[in-house]
Amino acid sequence: MDYQSLFSSRAAKPAPALFRAGAAIPPGVIPLTYGFPDPGSFPIEALVEAATRVLREQGKDALQYGPIQGPEAFRALLVAKLRAEGIQAGAENILVTVGGSQGIDLVGHLFVNPGDVVLVEAPTFIGALQTFRNLEADIQEVPVDEHGMDTDALAQRLEQLVAQGRPPKLIYTIPTFQNPSGTTLSEPRRQALVDLARRHGVMILEDDAYGELRFSGEALPALYARAPEEGVIQVRTFSKILAAGLRLGYVVAPKELMARLLQLKVDVATSPFVVSLAQAFASDGAAGLEPLQRHIETLQGVYRARRDAMLSALEEYAPPGVEWTHPDGGFFTWVTLPEGADAGALLAKATEAGVSFIPGAQNFPQTDGRRHMRLSFSFLPPEQLTEGIRRLGRVLHDAL
Amino acid sequence: MDYQSLFSSRAAKPAPALFRAGAAIPPGVIPLTYGFPDPGSFPIEALVEAATRVLREQGKDALQYGPIQGPEAFRALLVAKLRAEGIQAGAENILVTVGGSQGIDLVGHLFVNPGDVVLVEAPTFIGALQTFRNLEADIQEVPVDEHGMDTDALAQRLEQLVAQGRPPKLIYTIPTFQNPSGTTLSEPRRQALVDLARRHGVMILEDDAYGELRFSGEALPALYARAPEEGVIQVRTFSKILAAGLRLGYVVAPKELMARLLQLKVDVATSPFVVSLAQAFASDGAAGLEPLQRHIETLQGVYRARRDAMLSALEEYAPPGVEWTHPDGGFFTWVTLPEGADAGALLAKATEAGVSFIPGAQNFPQTDGRRHMRLSFSFLPPEQLTEGIRRLGRVLHDAL
Repeated sequence: MDYQSLFSSRAAKPAPALFRAGAAIPPGVIPLTYGFPDPGSFPIEALVEAATRVLREQGKDALQYGPIQGPEAFRALLVAKLRAEGIQAGAENILVTVGGSQGIDLVGHLFVNPGDVVLVEAPTFIGALQTFRNLEADIQEVPVDEHGMDTDALAQRLEQLVAQGRPPKLIYTIPTFQNPSGTTLSEPRRQALVDLARRHGVMILEDDAYGELRFSGEALPALYARAPEEGVIQVRTFSKILAAGLRLGYVVAPKELMARLLQLKVDVATSPFVVSLAQAFASDGAAGLEPLQRHIETLQGVYRARRDAMLSALEEYAPPGVEWTHPDGGFFTWVTLPEGADAGALLAKATEAGVSFIPGAQNFPQTDGRRHMRLSFSFLPPEQLTEGIRRLGRVLHDAL
Repeated sequence: MDYQSLFSSRAAKPAPALFRAGAAIPPGVIPLTYGFPDPGSFPIEALVEAATRVLREQGKDALQYGPIQGPEAFRALLVAKLRAEGIQAGAENILVTVGGSQGIDLVGHLFVNPGDVVLVEAPTFIGALQTFRNLEADIQEVPVDEHGMDTDALAQRLEQLVAQGRPPKLIYTIPTFQNPSGTTLSEPRRQALVDLARRHGVMILEDDAYGELRFSGEALPALYARAPEEGVIQVRTFSKILAAGLRLGYVVAPKELMARLLQLKVDVATSPFVVSLAQAFASDGAAGLEPLQRHIETLQGVYRARRDAMLSALEEYAPPGVEWTHPDGGFFTWVTLPEGADAGALLAKATEAGVSFIPGAQNFPQTDGRRHMRLSFSFLPPEQLTEGIRRLGRVLHDAL
């Protein structure tokens, strides 16, 4: 059968082969690739208890079809969580999704026609790039520096695109502990971003996958908090604060957009069983979210120690001319090699030396990102991170 | 903010308001609407045991990100299940999805550009209609009679569409215990359908959501079994044989299509926790699927009794001129009122009389389906089905 002639235009071209964070790593190699939560921190016994309680006490609902938007009680819990973070939203603003990724996909489908411009940070999350490629978007970059997205460059880019008759539909940003750069958008730039988007009538898609995992510095208000009901949609996830394997997230969106998001969400409803499980774990009753909050505090401690180990090891082992970001939270640091270096070309040598990383080139939709690599400190204990960076340091010394 | 001007063309038009099976029903009303599994049949204690085992023994994997296609061991189990049904497939033919609905959505995205023709049965599943509407497909009907899709009409329709330069991309069919009609495609029509699709180079999307729940008659081979690797994709679900609330399904597809399906599945992976739970429930080890098979046999008994109760009650209470299908399995029977009757117009009276049903009009994308109603026998125990049909019979007597 001739499938090729039947493919939709979105599927006709094969996607670029990406080095996914889950790719197999040879034994003996320390994977600084995995942007995965620490498996040792999964609250196994609390989940056994929660699963048992959910199945026995609410099994008839939890195992049944449920409301597409998500159960009202769970959305009410999320409302309380958001309030505690300074985000004013109601249950009617929340759509429960399959991880944060489904949120990005739904918002993409809501706005993006083939050829529409989507602005992303350079570098950005490869999962979002794949989603926007599937939508046949015209993906345009805005550079990132140590304070997050460069909003002066954004202002210029917006003017240019509008002048060219190609006004963007969407600005996709991970303002806090960005994947892959680990950077956080500064306070003045947050305001500038919201102002620019509003002035040009562009939606902001704020991906806040890592914001809860802050280990140093002051929390900055979310973009959504600055502009509720006014052009910002936030996507959130339980992947980093509870368990990635549950595939649970949510979208916080202006009420006006909810009916259309629901019509695009054709998977009936995010697993009512998973939702009930997360709710039973997160809450000790109507009172609130203390069990989840305590668990997040534990995670902050775990990941703080890992970040510290990785950054100290970089200080010790990285050769001169190599730079890296100093994240206040999240899972990643982002390494920049001297001009002319090619991280991808070093990967085979690094693997031979017993360490792996993600070459940064694939995080850029347009410009050349060969000088960069993403290092994840979330997955491994401090000793292994230190040893991994020691090995990487040797490879860099030899190569540079 | 002017959202309207930002919407994608797929989202610009609001979807028709559908009477979803999960819509709230007033108290005291017997819901013949719910196309839901019997909540009394959920295997609660076996799932408590399975969840405990999965979390304690495999928690570090089950709660972590997993492979997009689904874990190899789970796909191997599905391969064994398919073989037992006469379907030859390998693990490389299987993609684990969020229910059957995500399968329909992914296959739709794989083939359908805006304006492309998709052929569906009339009547058909409203979830699939919504998916194809989101894809901006040109949805065309093929009529269904007591032997399933009318393949003579299909042959004609295909000739016409090809002559008009609008060759369809996809034929969407639920050949066994169809939703909503309860009918099953006959053996000769199965062959005719596969032959016609092959001759015209059209993909078949075979939705086999109900096939395992046969309570009478002989099993017929799946369309996929007739043409593996040759233009048929099957979508399957655990919603009816284990628990809808898990949101677990799978696609069986030609190997050649797998890489592209994976690139369209941007939600990372169907919940590894849910997959592990289903696997732990379904299998008693490498040996096979006996626990699942035993559970399916229990369900067959439960639903057989419910079907029998509903059909007997229809014999007893339906006024002359009213017809209904006699399903050999699944969840539904389909009622046809005399010419000129309007089921939708009777819904308010029926609700007043203490019974509700789904008006059939919404199951037709083109022609007028006002004479029809869908009655579900899956959700309620026999006594309530009998009482519901008694009430409905009175309403029909008065109206016709």
